[in-house]
Amino acid sequence: MSVPPFHLARRMSGVRPSAIRELLRLGADPSVTSFGGGYPDASLFPVEELASVYAHLLVREHAEALQYTTSNGLPVLRQQVAERLTRDGAPRTADDVLIIQGGQQGLDLAAKLVVDPGDVIVTENPTFLGALIAFAPTEPTYAPVRTDADGMDTDDLARVLEQHPGARLLYTVPDFQNPTGATLALERRHRLLELANEHDLLVVEDTPYRSHRYEGASLPTLLSLDTEGRVLHLGSFSKILAPGLRLGWATGSPDVVERLGLLKLAADTQNSTLNMAATAAYLEAYDLEAHLARALPVYRHKRDLMLATMDATFPDAVLRTRPEGGLFVWLTFPDGPSTGSGQRFDAADFLKRVLLPEAKVAYVPGATFFPVRQEPNHARMSFSGVPDERLVEGVTRMGRLLQREL
Amino acid sequence: MSVPPFHLARRMSGVRPSAIRELLRLGADPSVTSFGGGYPDASLFPVEELASVYAHLLVREHAEALQYTTSNGLPVLRQQVAERLTRDGAPRTADDVLIIQGGQQGLDLAAKLVVDPGDVIVTENPTFLGALIAFAPTEPTYAPVRTDADGMDTDDLARVLEQHPGARLLYTVPDFQNPTGATLALERRHRLLELANEHDLLVVEDTPYRSHRYEGASLPTLLSLDTEGRVLHLGSFSKILAPGLRLGWATGSPDVVERLGLLKLAADTQNSTLNMAATAAYLEAYDLEAHLARALPVYRHKRDLMLATMDATFPDAVLRTRPEGGLFVWLTFPDGPSTGSGQRFDAADFLKRVLLPEAKVAYVPGATFFPVRQEPNHARMSFSGVPDERLVEGVTRMGRLLQREL
Repeated sequence: MSVPPFHLARRMSGVRPSAIRELLRLGADPSVTSFGGGYPDASLFPVEELASVYAHLLVREHAEALQYTTSNGLPVLRQQVAERLTRDGAPRTADDVLIIQGGQQGLDLAAKLVVDPGDVIVTENPTFLGALIAFAPTEPTYAPVRTDADGMDTDDLARVLEQHPGARLLYTVPDFQNPTGATLALERRHRLLELANEHDLLVVEDTPYRSHRYEGASLPTLLSLDTEGRVLHLGSFSKILAPGLRLGWATGSPDVVERLGLLKLAADTQNSTLNMAATAAYLEAYDLEAHLARALPVYRHKRDLMLATMDATFPDAVLRTRPEGGLFVWLTFPDGPSTGSGQRFDAADFLKRVLLPEAKVAYVPGATFFPVRQEPNHARMSFSGVPDERLVEGVTRMGRLLQREL
Repeated sequence: MSVPPFHLARRMSGVRPSAIRELLRLGADPSVTSFGGGYPDASLFPVEELASVYAHLLVREHAEALQYTTSNGLPVLRQQVAERLTRDGAPRTADDVLIIQGGQQGLDLAAKLVVDPGDVIVTENPTFLGALIAFAPTEPTYAPVRTDADGMDTDDLARVLEQHPGARLLYTVPDFQNPTGATLALERRHRLLELANEHDLLVVEDTPYRSHRYEGASLPTLLSLDTEGRVLHLGSFSKILAPGLRLGWATGSPDVVERLGLLKLAADTQNSTLNMAATAAYLEAYDLEAHLARALPVYRHKRDLMLATMDATFPDAVLRTRPEGGLFVWLTFPDGPSTGSGQRFDAADFLKRVLLPEAKVAYVPGATFFPVRQEPNHARMSFSGVPDERLVEGVTRMGRLLQREL
């Protein structure tokens, strides 16, 4: 980027194009089978139902759906979200809910709430790239915590918090984490909150995939286990209804919701009145849980298909997670010298040099998901957006090239 | 507000509920005739046309309108905005345009781009309250500039910039300013840019009312006069189409647009794909300028009706602006001791003590529009959202009480 003829704020030195942007652009070629995006399956969107609610709203007597409304969000939608949260174990009222521009806006607002330049944010290692992007303008530093199949390792968290006594914010995706697919175990949920209480942290619980469980029993949210009002819980309609509406929610203690509302007002005044009214009408007229019950078997099938194809075609040396839900499988390639090149395996290099040109297949190289020490030998693969036949073909072609490379 | 059990970021000390929030809440009572909001007239929204474009999009083969899309905004909409800007004297391409969540988000992004804590923002005096709210999280200080019927006084601007050599951002609403209704004169537009060039400022040109000119000739935008790439131009579909879609645009030099795009990605990923697709389809299928040509006479009539009723009923001591466009008339009450009370006239006090209880009429007290020294003897009145009969009745009742008070 060239330099503008005026002074830039200091925060802009941390606001940079992502290193993977160029690679994602290559993956956007329609002839490429991309496992890169974390997109829901567009064929599952309830298009006819949404057509019906928009048609109902876009008439002269409902013209207020096109007008400004209250900054915190339409009261009827906040009430519906509160009821859904209550059914999920955390009793809420409409006043406890703030409607936001997708879960992503909640990350921006949360960082603004507690992070001064140089303050420490604690995250899973690896963590959601979009969160690192959202937090960057507040100029944080990071303390990543070891993460395994049961999510954030709370023993390591205790050590990390001893080393960073001024840490301000703990960011976690407890259900089917992005990028690893791991789910935080119940005893670790309790321990995480104990540690957050001891160290006066704001805990940001990000739950975009929470409803996408394909097996096993749901675990209680951190919100429902919180006794001190220090959990800010973020949810999103993007994966359960449609991302193109840009609707999510934030909830927490009244202190937190009121301040977050002021930050929302400052950031963009309000969400789209029309989309909020349409979503409220959809939730009133249709059964979202029944819609999910129809969608989830499709995702479960795609997950199983991807894992089975990997089992059949990938070298044993490539480790992969087996998530109980969500959209992602996380690959770990051997971290010693790989046979083919004598070099350590670099997933970005393999993508660019081999996988894209020879197989027309793309994934997201894992390095950018690490806030501090970037490990090159990982990749994130999403099974949600690719039709079955292409999925099997793409994974098989990738397996063949990995067999040759390793 | 009570205190949460964790440390708040320093910026939160400047992010506070607005002093007028309580008063605006009183004005929301439907029995009150409110001249407070800056709302467009909902009866003018092209509801049938929008119903048609949403119906066209919400079918299975256009399901991508409900999916994620590129962060900078749908290319077709960016192209249409670029063409509109080009017709307005500033040649643009789609790449020069960023779609944002209403003009308001542009203010948040602009401040993030250049303002470090303590940095000086230069504004008209008074200025748009929403801009002060948007800028607050970046912890600025303010240097307000004398403003008259021809907008920001550039002689005073020159003095202010001498006094504040480190000023970073100049914020202006050159067309039908909020709250005064003033339009920046042509020679001042040139002089303002000269001074911005000398002092290395980012100029934020906010143009929500630019298309709402009821008489006189349009003046060139600062964007079109800029020779150094230091104007960030913000526009909005809120007043020309409908605010409930939350769509606006930002344009400037490639340097600025690229960085603003990174900040937009960090803030909320993207605008609603559906609303962008629908607006693009509306612009393709219908004639926005013809729509405006039908709407503008309604606003002109309301402005004339408000001013004529004030002429007939207000005391001469109450000065009012006669804007050539926009939505607002700005009142200046006598600033000496007023006859009724022996006190100086305080528009907030008059509203609460007299106007609301006796006449059920509301306006926005002017004090909060002043970034530094709050003058109590002003009010902003919007003529856009009130039906004719209620408008005449409300202004007349207000005039009667002012006659008694002054």
